Amino acid sequence: MNKFSSFRIISRNFSTSHSRNLIFRQLFDHPSSTYTYLLGCAKTKECVLIDPVVEQVKRDFKVVQDLGLKLKYAVNTHMHADHVTGTGYLRVLSGCKTIISKMSGADADIHVNENDTITFGEHKLTVFSTPGHTNGCVTYYFPAKNLAFTGDALLVRGCGRTDFQEGDARVLYRSVHDKILSLPTSTLLYPAHDYNGFSCTSVDEEKKYNPRLTKSEDEFVDIMNNLNLEYPHQIDRALPANKVCGVYDIPEDAKKA
Amino acid sequence: MNKFSSFRIISRNFSTSHSRNLIFRQLFDHPSSTYTYLLGCAKTKECVLIDPVVEQVKRDFKVVQDLGLKLKYAVNTHMHADHVTGTGYLRVLSGCKTIISKMSGADADIHVNENDTITFGEHKLTVFSTPGHTNGCVTYYFPAKNLAFTGDALLVRGCGRTDFQEGDARVLYRSVHDKILSLPTSTLLYPAHDYNGFSCTSVDEEKKYNPRLTKSEDEFVDIMNNLNLEYPHQIDRALPANKVCGVYDIPEDAKKA
Repeated sequence: MNKFSSFRIISRNFSTSHSRNLIFRQLFDHPSSTYTYLLGCAKTKECVLIDPVVEQVKRDFKVVQDLGLKLKYAVNTHMHADHVTGTGYLRVLSGCKTIISKMSGADADIHVNENDTITFGEHKLTVFSTPGHTNGCVTYYFPAKNLAFTGDALLVRGCGRTDFQEGDARVLYRSVHDKILSLPTSTLLYPAHDYNGFSCTSVDEEKKYNPRLTKSEDEFVDIMNNLNLEYPHQIDRALPANKVCGVYDIPEDAKKA
Repeated sequence: MNKFSSFRIISRNFSTSHSRNLIFRQLFDHPSSTYTYLLGCAKTKECVLIDPVVEQVKRDFKVVQDLGLKLKYAVNTHMHADHVTGTGYLRVLSGCKTIISKMSGADADIHVNENDTITFGEHKLTVFSTPGHTNGCVTYYFPAKNLAFTGDALLVRGCGRTDFQEGDARVLYRSVHDKILSLPTSTLLYPAHDYNGFSCTSVDEEKKYNPRLTKSEDEFVDIMNNLNLEYPHQIDRALPANKVCGVYDIPEDAKKA
């Protein structure tokens, strides 16, 4: 039995009553405008961190400890290009397991695929493959509270870029419409980044007001192919580090942060 | 009957079941590191904005409109020194009423005092006087969800400064302990500012881990009197504007923002 098989524990009888025990914190890294999410089970104390940033690992792990939680998984929505993931450093500090999608091509303790389930205590996250920004992008859906962590696939009134790594605007359009905007309209969506002071959005709002994704597929592709954005300034540092996200090579400067 | 009397509607039978209808959004202004809070009643569509920033008024009002809400009150926790309140401009845009404490000495449509109640739809906020950062600082408590909006009285692992306006460290210490940290330990606390990427905290955490407020009153006073902080860079612009918060003198540049 490989690592992945042992990890795939599906809780079919999971009910919304369990959501009463959810501990939830949103954390922000100002230099990269990245959101990190802490989700914990108040009953068992198991928790996960989604998209931690290496420079904030000590802060994030202190929050885990202050809340009396035990970090089970440090989770990536994708192989980021704009910051170095904190999952590897958290693994060293806490003994947690790291997670990324199989399609990302990056190393981690556990690789996830479409419809896999990540359990922590009485809670679960379901994995949706949402490629387009990168091939390995996933959205983590928390059905008990009707929340989704969309990574860079969908941002508040925006979306991730498609002009580097394996970016493909047509693939992104279909991912967002088929996997995210098809969730219940009341679903709250938590992105990996925000640059305008928004903390979350909803399926309903993005279906109505997203300036790009309310367009036709062809119009969306045309918009995305003509953004003329700057080269991501952390990409040359971030990609090699994130390719081994959480298993090897913790940057020395991060340990001193 | 004056404005204040007509406003004081206390819902004694308010129950937690109403909290299911709460719409809640946290918004951030990067230049001043200010959090603005939107609370809305999903049933009646009435909402309030707590501590809006004038440069973000168009963003905030767009969120109100996108969510199909009607802004009833634009509310201040105190007379801010680090940014210009957006309550006046929101009043012009939306026809809402502005609110600040009587003790602030500032103008507004409605002045609130200890134990007053602000109602929007099926929800209510209770006013606690929490002076020390300024004389007029209040905390707005949302009993149905066990949330409190603490303004600058209590920040995540910190507190507001006491070295300008009517700052008084001894008064602040007593306010925080008597009015905020005496709430149920599970109460989530939402501050007016954060500089470290935290979005909220809890009574339990601050009672255990606040580096200043876990000290004795004399030690706290000593810490606060020796912080040697810089003069707030927006204070000379902010105080005259906030003294008339929401009733007169909307800055021309804000209208163009």
